[in-house]
Amino acid sequence: MAGIIRVNMNELKVTVEDLPADYNLLGGRGLTSRVVHDEVPPDCHPLGPYNKIVIAPGVVSGTNAPSSGRVSVGGKSPLTGGIKEANAGTPVAQKLGRLRIKAVIVEGKPAEKGSWLLKINKDGGELVPADSLEGKVTSEVNRALFNDYGEKAGVITIGPAGENRMSMAGICFNDTEGRASRYAGRGGLGAVMGSKGLKALVIDETDAPKVEIKDPDLFKTGAKKLNEGLRSHFATKPGGTLNSFGTAALINILNEAGGLPTRNFSEGVFEGARQISGETISDKVQQRGGSGMMGHSCHPGCVIRCSNVYPKADGSEHVSCIEYESDWAFGANCGIDNLDHIAELIRLCNEYGLDTIEAGVTMGVAMEAGLAEFGDGEAAIRLMQEIGNNSPLGRILGNGSYFTGTAYGLTRIPVVKRQGMPAYDPRAVKGIGVTYITSPMGADHTAGYTIAPEILSVGGQVDPLETSDKTELSRTFQQVTAFLDSTGYCLFIAFAILDYPDANEGMVETVNAVLGTEYTPDDVPKVGTEILKIERDFNRKAGITNESDRPPEFMKYEALPPHKHTFDISAGKLDSVWDYIE
Amino acid sequence: MAGIIRVNMNELKVTVEDLPADYNLLGGRGLTSRVVHDEVPPDCHPLGPYNKIVIAPGVVSGTNAPSSGRVSVGGKSPLTGGIKEANAGTPVAQKLGRLRIKAVIVEGKPAEKGSWLLKINKDGGELVPADSLEGKVTSEVNRALFNDYGEKAGVITIGPAGENRMSMAGICFNDTEGRASRYAGRGGLGAVMGSKGLKALVIDETDAPKVEIKDPDLFKTGAKKLNEGLRSHFATKPGGTLNSFGTAALINILNEAGGLPTRNFSEGVFEGARQISGETISDKVQQRGGSGMMGHSCHPGCVIRCSNVYPKADGSEHVSCIEYESDWAFGANCGIDNLDHIAELIRLCNEYGLDTIEAGVTMGVAMEAGLAEFGDGEAAIRLMQEIGNNSPLGRILGNGSYFTGTAYGLTRIPVVKRQGMPAYDPRAVKGIGVTYITSPMGADHTAGYTIAPEILSVGGQVDPLETSDKTELSRTFQQVTAFLDSTGYCLFIAFAILDYPDANEGMVETVNAVLGTEYTPDDVPKVGTEILKIERDFNRKAGITNESDRPPEFMKYEALPPHKHTFDISAGKLDSVWDYIE
Repeated sequence: MAGIIRVNMNELKVTVEDLPADYNLLGGRGLTSRVVHDEVPPDCHPLGPYNKIVIAPGVVSGTNAPSSGRVSVGGKSPLTGGIKEANAGTPVAQKLGRLRIKAVIVEGKPAEKGSWLLKINKDGGELVPADSLEGKVTSEVNRALFNDYGEKAGVITIGPAGENRMSMAGICFNDTEGRASRYAGRGGLGAVMGSKGLKALVIDETDAPKVEIKDPDLFKTGAKKLNEGLRSHFATKPGGTLNSFGTAALINILNEAGGLPTRNFSEGVFEGARQISGETISDKVQQRGGSGMMGHSCHPGCVIRCSNVYPKADGSEHVSCIEYESDWAFGANCGIDNLDHIAELIRLCNEYGLDTIEAGVTMGVAMEAGLAEFGDGEAAIRLMQEIGNNSPLGRILGNGSYFTGTAYGLTRIPVVKRQGMPAYDPRAVKGIGVTYITSPMGADHTAGYTIAPEILSVGGQVDPLETSDKTELSRTFQQVTAFLDSTGYCLFIAFAILDYPDANEGMVETVNAVLGTEYTPDDVPKVGTEILKIERDFNRKAGITNESDRPPEFMKYEALPPHKHTFDISAGKLDSVWDYIE
Repeated sequence: MAGIIRVNMNELKVTVEDLPADYNLLGGRGLTSRVVHDEVPPDCHPLGPYNKIVIAPGVVSGTNAPSSGRVSVGGKSPLTGGIKEANAGTPVAQKLGRLRIKAVIVEGKPAEKGSWLLKINKDGGELVPADSLEGKVTSEVNRALFNDYGEKAGVITIGPAGENRMSMAGICFNDTEGRASRYAGRGGLGAVMGSKGLKALVIDETDAPKVEIKDPDLFKTGAKKLNEGLRSHFATKPGGTLNSFGTAALINILNEAGGLPTRNFSEGVFEGARQISGETISDKVQQRGGSGMMGHSCHPGCVIRCSNVYPKADGSEHVSCIEYESDWAFGANCGIDNLDHIAELIRLCNEYGLDTIEAGVTMGVAMEAGLAEFGDGEAAIRLMQEIGNNSPLGRILGNGSYFTGTAYGLTRIPVVKRQGMPAYDPRAVKGIGVTYITSPMGADHTAGYTIAPEILSVGGQVDPLETSDKTELSRTFQQVTAFLDSTGYCLFIAFAILDYPDANEGMVETVNAVLGTEYTPDDVPKVGTEILKIERDFNRKAGITNESDRPPEFMKYEALPPHKHTFDISAGKLDSVWDYIE
């Protein structure tokens, strides 16, 4: 079997199809966006029968290329109303790759309410009723499925938030040890899965045929070059920044740059930054001992290992993991400087099946609306539990930051295309602002991570407050990222491939080795552009125009301390990001 | 004084300006849309400092032309995100006309929270603090202001819903006897007024200069012709349909046509229609006696007098008035056949300051979400009270039908551009569907009332289920309506002017007489087109494109009983409504 598993939820029927010939060169985001573009009517209701969920591992996922265990999920987003791709690092990506499944496409909607489980193995897929999983939090789903299908199974699930069709619901994948903790979080794709009555997928890779590699020698050469790059770069090497302190190493860095959004994007410096920094997380893990660990990996074969397991005071496991984004979202953004409260908020997100970024931005907005005091971690936990309770307040919060701000008549809502902004204030780091605003995905730092040169001096060095050339910078990063999101590689390989031409070449060689293509590094932005084109095309047909590529109004008139900058890149400049393709 | 009263809420300053020369030919909607188009940035946040509220009486409002007491309110809608005009019939329209105030423009936003009252008289305007009115329901505001400023004052106010910036909040005007009951309801303009801290306006017309009529003889001739038309037509004459049974005369008619949306637009016939019909309202008014009355007028000088005062069982006043739309919205649309429950729901809307159409459509959606059973009037009253309580559930409901449906992850949400659909199912009456979908205002029957020929055999006769020619029909009605909405005449004069060329000529003559223009009846659609053009232009710049001119998806695949029709007019046909101007 190779190709596509198509799951028709109208008829509760699963079929296996060959990948169409012209899709052969795609994986991950390139494939999800292509299928969504070609098969989903752009004007459909995101929770209706015509939307689809597409799950696709990257091109090299399942090989032994380093840090390549990413899987993409695509569909029309109930949050933004546009096309959406969100990806996660997980052994599931590798299992799908080794099963030679290029995509799982879930379509239609059952006539009767109910919950189903999709079983996937080397022979195809089968839908079975899953009433016993209904309403279960993600850790319970994982436990039940590992119990029934063995510890080596791969599990994809939604939590109660997805079942309740809340638009901040993500899709959860297991990590290396089986935790329900790795998320294709953004854009509410969990709600789309929930609307189809699909509670979970379980993947059995017994006798999987493995990834077909057309040129094994080239693959070996390429993987080696990339591996060496990753092992040399200060950010990604063993014992390097990410490995030692996790992504939350960025807390102190952004705070010093005055770009750490604090108390719902009202300041760029958080007085409690040190207490929630990656360094402090690392200290606590060491002090508390027990199950805590730094340098945890989300999938086998990762060189970078930026994940962590955060322990309670008694050493027992609290949550995996405290990422920079989650840490910031519930920390600085809510004025909370207590890591245990932050850990609990993240744990609740993992259990309910929520995107931590959207949840944290929503919490900041809820605090702005007066539902809790900034800094009150216990009140934040109570608010988060409302989502689990499915109360009216939970219904508001569970639909995200734009929805919550609108419910309370606020104007200070830090979103683009209704998606909450990640952990970099666009007024202090202008290039990432251009990415937030112009990405087809809504506010998304991973869509074009200009933080590398703006803050980290990786891939060059540019002034974060400068506005000139930021459109070009973001454009290039978005192009390259669209390619990377299709490969199955973790975005963090970008550090090495930006700084080391050899590593970049190696990355391209592994892709060529699998696909039989002859891409050069120069082709990367071109291939990325093709993906961005179809995403923009879908959005335009969904009614998302240049007028949606705009910052929230308050950032145009409210200057951010300490730099006292507004977001001062004009509409015309923003539109120019896409001039070259339209 | 003549022209514009400009109220700057940033500085709490009121100035009087001359009307710009090129605005001289406009009144009502023509003027509000022009000011909004020219002065409001289309991409601004509707509740932010850059939106404006524009209040403008019609061209002939304040004269003795029959049924001419309409006033328009314009701004960017927090509900649709586009341009909005909503109008009401009220003595206030006439007072503004006689004061020669063409428009009140409220702009900016105070630095500090608070409530203000704008006092208007022949010398201009003055802002005074109004903390004592804060949080008051509309009847309390009216009582307080009549007490302070005399019973002859005109009052414009918002209820608590507007203060709480809920996007189904309307703006309330007093009726002939001073009731807080006449609404510029649609599109959430009450929330915009609330966002500016403006709780109410009080208008004193002492020593008003009266409307300047350039050609008094022509005016007399025209008014007489129109008056005769209104007094002859079966719909509008004294003792005619509207006068005898009110607008709710339409309940039985639409029910028979299979186009009365029932239980959240799932059927076109309501088994309880008779119990909530205009005929039954009239019977109850007669039986119960006391304060009840049919043939009530919303403003002095109305020939049609289609309003009513509905009494409780003991004869004491319950509410004015039970309009067709409100009656349907809480009645058939919620499966409720008890007029006393409907009356109470309307009374709560009037008190909280809500658009009854949006509130009723929201209630139907809430019932679909399982918040109450269809048909349970008492549960509906309790839900409505949540809006007054400003609870989380009230926050959901108070933001309208689209918001409520989204909160609960529904797909059956009967809206266009997020505005709830009025009382005609577009699958059974296709022309009004084209109006709902293509109007710049969102779903709005008054934007192009094709019901006249489709259901009432007025202005011709066309098959409501037929799709061909419905785009042209809606286009023409929308053009003429944009003109009528600018005159200050009630839309119901359309019955007479459609059927009697003399009445139509008379209407145009009164406008010419006031303005000094030489319009012919043939110019009416041309002038209307100019208004529609600037409204479409604003919307496009606000990001509302042809892709927003679409029916809710479920109406494309769910056939409506009893006719079993879907909404089957293609996107291309819908877009063709505007081909001629773009």
